[in-house]
Amino acid sequence: MIKIDKFKSEFNIFLESQLPNSNKIIHKAQRYALNNGGKRYRAYLIFLLGNDYGISKKNLFLMGSAIEMIHAYSLVHDDLPCMDDDELRRGMPTCHKKYNEAQALLVGDGLQSKAFELMSSNKLTIDDKDKLRCIQFLSESIGSNGMVLGQSLDMVNEGKLPNKKTLEEIHYNKTGKLIKACFTIPCIAAKKTGLYQKKLEKIGGLFGLTYQMIDDLLDLNPNKSILGKNPGKDLQKKKITFCSLYGQSKTKQIINSSVNEIYSLSDQLKLPDSFRLLIQTIYERVK
Amino acid sequence: MIKIDKFKSEFNIFLESQLPNSNKIIHKAQRYALNNGGKRYRAYLIFLLGNDYGISKKNLFLMGSAIEMIHAYSLVHDDLPCMDDDELRRGMPTCHKKYNEAQALLVGDGLQSKAFELMSSNKLTIDDKDKLRCIQFLSESIGSNGMVLGQSLDMVNEGKLPNKKTLEEIHYNKTGKLIKACFTIPCIAAKKTGLYQKKLEKIGGLFGLTYQMIDDLLDLNPNKSILGKNPGKDLQKKKITFCSLYGQSKTKQIINSSVNEIYSLSDQLKLPDSFRLLIQTIYERVK
Repeated sequence: MIKIDKFKSEFNIFLESQLPNSNKIIHKAQRYALNNGGKRYRAYLIFLLGNDYGISKKNLFLMGSAIEMIHAYSLVHDDLPCMDDDELRRGMPTCHKKYNEAQALLVGDGLQSKAFELMSSNKLTIDDKDKLRCIQFLSESIGSNGMVLGQSLDMVNEGKLPNKKTLEEIHYNKTGKLIKACFTIPCIAAKKTGLYQKKLEKIGGLFGLTYQMIDDLLDLNPNKSILGKNPGKDLQKKKITFCSLYGQSKTKQIINSSVNEIYSLSDQLKLPDSFRLLIQTIYERVK
Repeated sequence: MIKIDKFKSEFNIFLESQLPNSNKIIHKAQRYALNNGGKRYRAYLIFLLGNDYGISKKNLFLMGSAIEMIHAYSLVHDDLPCMDDDELRRGMPTCHKKYNEAQALLVGDGLQSKAFELMSSNKLTIDDKDKLRCIQFLSESIGSNGMVLGQSLDMVNEGKLPNKKTLEEIHYNKTGKLIKACFTIPCIAAKKTGLYQKKLEKIGGLFGLTYQMIDDLLDLNPNKSILGKNPGKDLQKKKITFCSLYGQSKTKQIINSSVNEIYSLSDQLKLPDSFRLLIQTIYERVK
């Protein structure tokens, strides 16, 4: 199975080729925001699962590109002064610092549209009905009952006392639903339904929350070179995080038991070894 | 044929019913931004043409809702401090003034996703292939080679000397392409192709630019009650407009000849009288 580093270098070339390549500021800023040294875990997830289902590489790269564009758009908007006001993203100036706020706003807007352009394109050769189901699932996952809701609640709850229900609502929507879509989209494209789909979506949901918990822990890690952004931001902005509610030690315990549940469900579904390897890689960062 | 006022009251109820209705800030702000007293010309255009083609009212309302959501999202983002910094929209506080910048940013993001959710939904009962073509056309029209490009160029060219090429590139992209989509989408749904489609798209393109010229003229009109926003903004922000390039009198002449061309093409395509009536209504505002 193709390893993540090899995948990344091939995928990144494909991803960039999907964007307009001109000297117009909006196009330069869009490429800057997308080529940001991202780990591409989301696209790799789609690739691992979809490859196991026998979906073509081109189709998986297209779906992965759509997801990475949505992810990049959400980061560019999240970094804006009216949101998290971040100047650094993966060790580089954020999009609005490199260009300006107006162009960064538009970069995010355009990346969202581009994701739907890719998902509806003729280049994606899955069945029309499945394509529409993927678009439907993706749009619901990121809209005002999905990612956007999570971001809104995250802002509204800054400085408030954390509680389990709110914390989970924020993070399941803000991070979890887009990650879950990386499980559901290849599943739809491969026409997997019923109990299989349910269990896979359960893994997706669990993984989404676990990923966020790992991110919360990393934010408290003072090693900037690993994180690539200014650490301690959550604390500084009084964000509700898993660590602020449970403390670091209990958060690690919860991550540990979630990862074990993911492994167990993956075995039941006979997911490829490479999937377990990816989970391990992500988990290793805080273990 | 149903008149625009009757259409508007029925359509607005349908439109609002498509949004989540909760007390969460993001949902309240989304409804506020969408129920902004908009004229609904875009949805009415889709309705007039699609009705003539025999497309069901429900389908036309769904397509119209998607377009009005895109339009509303673009206005909310356009009004933000980093863009046009407007405090008033149709006589009411803009979304970021009523709520805050972060929520307004997210409102726009969520409205864009919702538009694609509607267009991919099972509630829209046109052929899957046509649905995908509509999504494709819409996403291209509003992305970084469409509306977003126009907005980017509009910002970049503030304070610069106007020239015909740049002016047309800005306005064709910023306003024209979404309006053109109101012609193309019912056309795709009704499976109209070939010369008919080409001519209809020509009307769409012409109408898009003409609409923008009318808007430029209205911006110089000191009667706030007609405009519903602070007039003279374009001048103040040193925007490139048709009036700044040609002056008011020549702009009126260009509008006049465009409208005549639209009438002539509409006759060739036997578009319904109600379409001519709509053009007249819009044109009357500056004649």
